[in-house]
Amino acid sequence: MINIETLMHLLDLLGTFVFGVSGAVAAINRRLDIFGILVLSFVTGNFGGITRDLLIGAVPPAALINAQYLLVSILAGFICFFWYAGIDRVRSPMLLFDAAGLSLFAVTGAEKAIEYGLSPVMSALLGMLTGIGGGMLRDMLITDIPQVLRSDLYAVAALVGASIVVIGHVVGLSYGVSGSVGLVSCFALRYMAIRYGWHLPVANISAQRRAEIERIDNER
Amino acid sequence: MINIETLMHLLDLLGTFVFGVSGAVAAINRRLDIFGILVLSFVTGNFGGITRDLLIGAVPPAALINAQYLLVSILAGFICFFWYAGIDRVRSPMLLFDAAGLSLFAVTGAEKAIEYGLSPVMSALLGMLTGIGGGMLRDMLITDIPQVLRSDLYAVAALVGASIVVIGHVVGLSYGVSGSVGLVSCFALRYMAIRYGWHLPVANISAQRRAEIERIDNER
Amino acid sequence: MINIETLMHLLDLLGTFVFGVSGAVAAINRRLDIFGILVLSFVTGNFGGITRDLLIGAVPPAALINAQYLLVSILAGFICFFWYAGIDRVRSPMLLFDAAGLSLFAVTGAEKAIEYGLSPVMSALLGMLTGIGGGMLRDMLITDIPQVLRSDLYAVAALVGASIVVIGHVVGLSYGVSGSVGLVSCFALRYMAIRYGWHLPVANISAQRRAEIERIDNER
Repeated sequence: MINIETLMHLLDLLGTFVFGVSGAVAAINRRLDIFGILVLSFVTGNFGGITRDLLIGAVPPAALINAQYLLVSILAGFICFFWYAGIDRVRSPMLLFDAAGLSLFAVTGAEKAIEYGLSPVMSALLGMLTGIGGGMLRDMLITDIPQVLRSDLYAVAALVGASIVVIGHVVGLSYGVSGSVGLVSCFALRYMAIRYGWHLPVANISAQRRAEIERIDNER
Repeated sequence: MINIETLMHLLDLLGTFVFGVSGAVAAINRRLDIFGILVLSFVTGNFGGITRDLLIGAVPPAALINAQYLLVSILAGFICFFWYAGIDRVRSPMLLFDAAGLSLFAVTGAEKAIEYGLSPVMSALLGMLTGIGGGMLRDMLITDIPQVLRSDLYAVAALVGASIVVIGHVVGLSYGVSGSVGLVSCFALRYMAIRYGWHLPVANISAQRRAEIERIDNER
Repeated sequence: MINIETLMHLLDLLGTFVFGVSGAVAAINRRLDIFGILVLSFVTGNFGGITRDLLIGAVPPAALINAQYLLVSILAGFICFFWYAGIDRVRSPMLLFDAAGLSLFAVTGAEKAIEYGLSPVMSALLGMLTGIGGGMLRDMLITDIPQVLRSDLYAVAALVGASIVVIGHVVGLSYGVSGSVGLVSCFALRYMAIRYGWHLPVANISAQRRAEIERIDNER
């Protein structure tokens, strides 16, 4: 029988793989070479966790100690390199895998921050950061504004999942229970955001001000 | 009576707030959603200090231990979200607040680096980094070249303020004295740079070479 | 007689200088002011090593402890500022210096990671990161996609040099031998990549898919 530790670890590797695929696809779309593809694959799957580890003082970061993360990332990169057309066709299932990766990273990230003694609020935020950090650097490396800053309920889903783990810890639930509820909640929220096109609000700007901003942007 | 520690802490929070506002306004101008606004607000107000703390080995960084910084950043983000039109109208006073934030971060950043045993020169540079780091990541996240790399005496003002603290430490002045002088000097320099349009020089490029660079840029 | 430690340190400073020049030239081409030039000079010459030091837990990073790196970076920045036309003319020799800097950073970076107890594979990757990290942040600061992600055998040369050091360590060679072989191999590979235009492959994309990507990019 498989225990919860092993299961979480396998899911963690699955999350790394799926995020790796999203990084590799972004790299291919920008015509990066095979090295650039592997870098974006690794960065997207691991940078969130690396940043969390640096911030909580867990150095060297887990992604640099356990070579499995590297291997999984490289695998994702090579698969995309050789079967781009195939990967490109399965985009909808990929979105679900990505939601699974996000959920898992948010939950495990929050748990690790708690273990390192951070406050509940900060642990929830670090869980969210673990989930979204990789995709943010992926977008910055290809000079896009990070999608997570302007797309549908992505970071919020991660924050909800991480918060459930943290609240569970505060009220004394076992990690098995709070982690599972966090996972499912994050995934469900993200799924519904994709399914029904839920977005966060943007601020109101007067038409006049908006025209002014666009004029300034164009002058650059 | 309010003591100097409390005063510095209050000014520190004020600096975080004002930088948070500048991050939120940048996010709104780029049509980011409310999550993106809050992220840019937090990043602009805290990333300089977080980077300094990572570099000197003060982990977890102060901004992740004391929740007041997070609260102030979120407050700044929400205020901008709901009253953008109002915030947008008070830009000149905001520049002064921003100069105050810069001065304060430069001074407290240098002091913290000294406390952690860094050399005088590096402490001054880390003070400057504390002041300018948040704005740099703000600009990178919205894919602008950081303003501080090409605008008027911004970083130099921070460096002057931080250097005064460091020199004061070397010659044995109390932090109350050197910190105050550093604060006022940085603020005055930044104020005059805005008021009189002082700029740093750029390198001379021949007209021929400049045309060549522009041609290469356009071909991309 | 000069010993190997001193020689490596001198070469390290030379690498910092040459990378500093490449950062300063990039800054001048983008019309940054003298402060921006100095920042890019420092970042390009030191960020790779700083990132490595943060990841392996060597804080404060060496570049912040030993002021020689700062001095060399500033020197590179000022030389470019005052003699841009001259520097711009010697581009081919500069490419060779850059290859020397890359080789050296890859070798010393891998050695340092080994000393801090990282695994052979991760030490090789951290050696590569030491060599390419500075140039990556340089490009991100001026909002370019990092050249190393899509140019000729640059990172691969660094990885080969770093791997030789690591393999030498595993099989018990002295650092003097493995370091020298690593240096020469990285330099030779990089030189030949420049000389013969060797590139890494990019993924195959159908013409239809490529047109679609371009259309999406243009709509942004």
